[in-house]
Amino acid sequence: MTNRATIASILRFDDGAVRIDHDLVAVEAPLAIEVHAPASGVVRSLGVFMRTPGDDEDLVRGLLNSEGIIRHREDVRSISLDRTADHSGHEIARAELAPHVSLEALQIDRASPATSACGLCGRLIVDGLDHLAHHALPASSAVLPLAAVAALPRALKNRQTVFAETGGLHAAGLFDLVSGCLQIREDVGRHNALDKVVGAALAAGDLPARDRVIVVSGRVAFEIVQKTVMAGVPILIAVGAPSSLAVDAARRAGLTLAGFVRDGRFNIYTGQERIER
Amino acid sequence: MTNRATIASILRFDDGAVRIDHDLVAVEAPLAIEVHAPASGVVRSLGVFMRTPGDDEDLVRGLLNSEGIIRHREDVRSISLDRTADHSGHEIARAELAPHVSLEALQIDRASPATSACGLCGRLIVDGLDHLAHHALPASSAVLPLAAVAALPRALKNRQTVFAETGGLHAAGLFDLVSGCLQIREDVGRHNALDKVVGAALAAGDLPARDRVIVVSGRVAFEIVQKTVMAGVPILIAVGAPSSLAVDAARRAGLTLAGFVRDGRFNIYTGQERIER
Repeated sequence: MTNRATIASILRFDDGAVRIDHDLVAVEAPLAIEVHAPASGVVRSLGVFMRTPGDDEDLVRGLLNSEGIIRHREDVRSISLDRTADHSGHEIARAELAPHVSLEALQIDRASPATSACGLCGRLIVDGLDHLAHHALPASSAVLPLAAVAALPRALKNRQTVFAETGGLHAAGLFDLVSGCLQIREDVGRHNALDKVVGAALAAGDLPARDRVIVVSGRVAFEIVQKTVMAGVPILIAVGAPSSLAVDAARRAGLTLAGFVRDGRFNIYTGQERIER
Repeated sequence: MTNRATIASILRFDDGAVRIDHDLVAVEAPLAIEVHAPASGVVRSLGVFMRTPGDDEDLVRGLLNSEGIIRHREDVRSISLDRTADHSGHEIARAELAPHVSLEALQIDRASPATSACGLCGRLIVDGLDHLAHHALPASSAVLPLAAVAALPRALKNRQTVFAETGGLHAAGLFDLVSGCLQIREDVGRHNALDKVVGAALAAGDLPARDRVIVVSGRVAFEIVQKTVMAGVPILIAVGAPSSLAVDAARRAGLTLAGFVRDGRFNIYTGQERIER
């Protein structure tokens, strides 16, 4: 038990019987993120994120990568966490970029807060389909066996140890066919979980991860595709359904997208050439 | 089939067999929302929302209600939809408020876009727990029988007719114990689905709905509680898990919150006095 889950007193109803009980609940708490570019002196707010506490440095790195601000771990000089909530009641993470990194690519100040349900809300470039094409993935030598596609969501779920108990956490993982699971993160927000995985991979020097696979526990909206492409990962496997815009974006960016991966069945929406039949 | 679902060509893998097939995919598309207050001449952007097309007027009304800008259907003079995508590729909804309605309560311009995963991102007041207490629900005469709690998620699911096929849509419904389902809306975003239900109820003159129940197909983060409370609905029933902040907010606002409602079992997190044992 960490501060990622907390205990709530409940009334539990089970087939007519009622009892006073306790339930583990996933923690959702706000984190404000600020970025400082020392070369220009510019300080920008990325916004306030409703996330599950923990791995906050990974969240910051992942967000900056998804934003196109950083590409390598050396691009961030430091990340400090101020756990003393300010007057608004939220903790603050402050990232200092390396002198060679500019904040210019960050088009919009995110002074406004975000919910746990989204990662980059407020920053989604709506004409991002064209933007994403600039980051299109090169034809990849990675070929994923059919059996691996079907098996990876189970491998992800098996690693959701403590937090599976709350039933309230999304998971994302970065997998390597040789080494297995490289990174896994859980969060009340599915975008946060993916940002944390990408940030952890960046810190480990694992990006771009041309021969690896990202697996997510939920559905795939446009932004999940966007974050995967920006991480340079060519294959995305999801337990849930993709949206129309996610499929469009995956096609334009050259991403392999598998959805509804459950019980030995799945659909390949785009990039079937990376699946070994 | 409407423009809420589209057909994608897929490769379908089923227990080793592969075939070229088609799949229905939920549509995700951007909508920019602008609000005009004629008395002051002020025009504000609520942001760009990644939503499933359809019921866009309901979405606008629901958002404005969640924001605390409007309370009654007369508070909005008109909502026009410009389906000609602008240079950014998104459609635009323009709401004109009635002369007596002010935009002052809208603290932050939402010039920045939102994802399908969230409704009010960029507008969540992080110290909203205190704010929400100002909208605390009065002790309600509504008493919900145990059997109704267990049955309502099934009633919601049974009404997810066309779009259940995509597997990619969240649903929200407003229920009355006498009349049954009053409103149901589906969307790729769970916040959008709830905003659309609230907006439809507002247009029908059904808010505040002190003796009614909102049912949602997914999990409950803080903002789902916020929207329910702002709609004046005292009972929220969810198929999924609540977050810690959702439970806190529900307690402070006097909301009855039931979660994990499936297969005859459920948990009451707050407001048990409205459940008839």
